Amino acid sequence: MSDKPVRIAVDVMGGDYAPVEVVKGSIEAIKQGGIEIILVGPLDTIKAELNKYDVSSLNITSVQADEFIKEGEPPALALRQKRNATILIATKLVKDGRADAVVTAGPTGAQVASALTILGCAEGMERPVVGGPVLGFAPNTIVMDYGGNVDCKPYHLLNFATVGCVYARKLLNISNPTVAILSIGSEEGKGNDLVKQSWPLFKKSGLNFIGNAEGHDIVAGKANVIVCDGFVGNTLLKYSEGLGVAISKWLKVVLSGKLPDEVIGKMQHDLFTKIAGADNIGGAPLLGINGVSMVMHGRSKAPQFVGAIMQAKAVVEAKLIETINTELLKMKQHMESAKD
Amino acid sequence: MSDKPVRIAVDVMGGDYAPVEVVKGSIEAIKQGGIEIILVGPLDTIKAELNKYDVSSLNITSVQADEFIKEGEPPALALRQKRNATILIATKLVKDGRADAVVTAGPTGAQVASALTILGCAEGMERPVVGGPVLGFAPNTIVMDYGGNVDCKPYHLLNFATVGCVYARKLLNISNPTVAILSIGSEEGKGNDLVKQSWPLFKKSGLNFIGNAEGHDIVAGKANVIVCDGFVGNTLLKYSEGLGVAISKWLKVVLSGKLPDEVIGKMQHDLFTKIAGADNIGGAPLLGINGVSMVMHGRSKAPQFVGAIMQAKAVVEAKLIETINTELLKMKQHMESAKD
Repeated sequence: MSDKPVRIAVDVMGGDYAPVEVVKGSIEAIKQGGIEIILVGPLDTIKAELNKYDVSSLNITSVQADEFIKEGEPPALALRQKRNATILIATKLVKDGRADAVVTAGPTGAQVASALTILGCAEGMERPVVGGPVLGFAPNTIVMDYGGNVDCKPYHLLNFATVGCVYARKLLNISNPTVAILSIGSEEGKGNDLVKQSWPLFKKSGLNFIGNAEGHDIVAGKANVIVCDGFVGNTLLKYSEGLGVAISKWLKVVLSGKLPDEVIGKMQHDLFTKIAGADNIGGAPLLGINGVSMVMHGRSKAPQFVGAIMQAKAVVEAKLIETINTELLKMKQHMESAKD
Repeated sequence: MSDKPVRIAVDVMGGDYAPVEVVKGSIEAIKQGGIEIILVGPLDTIKAELNKYDVSSLNITSVQADEFIKEGEPPALALRQKRNATILIATKLVKDGRADAVVTAGPTGAQVASALTILGCAEGMERPVVGGPVLGFAPNTIVMDYGGNVDCKPYHLLNFATVGCVYARKLLNISNPTVAILSIGSEEGKGNDLVKQSWPLFKKSGLNFIGNAEGHDIVAGKANVIVCDGFVGNTLLKYSEGLGVAISKWLKVVLSGKLPDEVIGKMQHDLFTKIAGADNIGGAPLLGINGVSMVMHGRSKAPQFVGAIMQAKAVVEAKLIETINTELLKMKQHMESAKD
């Protein structure tokens, strides 16, 4: 941990509730201490938002960027056409050493494209990975990848495991994280081709590989790092969130009149944390990128921005990205051996 | 619907709680009317169990089978060595027209192998499919395949959709079921190779195809039939069950002292139905097989046997299997066009 404040570049125009909730969350986060905020967006918009608060004593600066990428725009094309897009300018601040991390709730495709082109991928990675503890029920279990890395090969899963183990050590303080491959049977030989082909690679990896984990094993926290194709991980994440919404509504219906509203409200909140914890943290770092870029839900509001900004601070202070990139480099030769 | 009772062959030795819970459940089921039970197992074991009840007025017969397959035995080998295994004898009763359906909580691998060799696959199917409404939150949404059909090709997904639509029409009374492909983005072009390659096939299928559905869309019931690779479906199913157990325990802890125990107990039960509904029905038919064979969880107890037996009755009376096989035949040419 360093005494120097962590400098967070925040994309003011990213997300469904930009700029209002973005600026609100940034101000709430800065009050927690240890950070500087660099708001990136149209200066007049930023000024109008900041005028709503007393920010005289807060370490907030602004950087002009008068374009932004909307949800649904083809990322590559949009970024070529909008050289002044907030996500590009904010990511460049990280590249240039003027910020330690970028935080955005803007379109993930544009964020990933910006991170890839400006910061670049870590050695041995082709695309960034997203993952972390998904469930409050299993706070020490990381599922990776829950981003969109689909049609994975065995060496991708090994990548995920390598990254996940660093995450577990650095952010969850687990010294020798256990690793499992998500499958549909617990024994060796059970699963699809990807799982079966990954086993020999994992066995020889030097990781603390404990075999397969099934869907219910995620909930039970059978391993610290459970790897899967990003199609499966992303589906599980969204399924969990959908269940969180549905169960929360159900609790309200069933308990109304039986318990005070505030008790029900707290239960709803707690339940959501238990089964859709990722949503609660606010943001997750793109892993396998040469820099800190925090990905968020488009529907994030101020509390999620606080969460993402404070998570960015933790990621920077833990030197998560640097350590991941070192470990990926160590694993590189073993991974290469798995490619055709 | 026919007035003739439906004849159910029950594998007395299948499942973790066999034979006690199997026989108990069979007797409870028969009291609901409209069925005959044929208990298949060692006659002395059956007799000992039946002696615990007054069964004099019940339509129960027994068929001798003095071997059975244990969980973990390699199915093909075990079935070759144990010609008198309960699952084989029970499945043969269906083949020979002496029973309308077989119900077992024994190892699924052995059951599938028995169904494949004795009853045979429907035209156009390579392996049976398992699916049905998974969630009480979305009772009109069928996820298919949640069995173990992994590494699927596009024509497999079309198979699942064809089967699922018949299920929706026959058992859920939905006249023109909507069909979606599970993916990680809602628009065309989002997803993995399987999803992308399946789109053209689905568009031309004549099915009521509405595009992609994401994880949360399963919970929201976006389509009546949502198809996916069996690896994903099975993982979702087990994940749901794991969450059901965890949330149920959490409810107990949070609500204890606040509400009477019986209210909490009912909530736990209802919650489980909401998020792990498949477990509640008790059993699901293997679809794409020339006969009715109900698959169950190994940990099933009497209520699940009642559920599976009554579900078997519904499947037989709806002529589900015959209709599926007719529809598969109609779709065959279109599916063949998708094979290399």
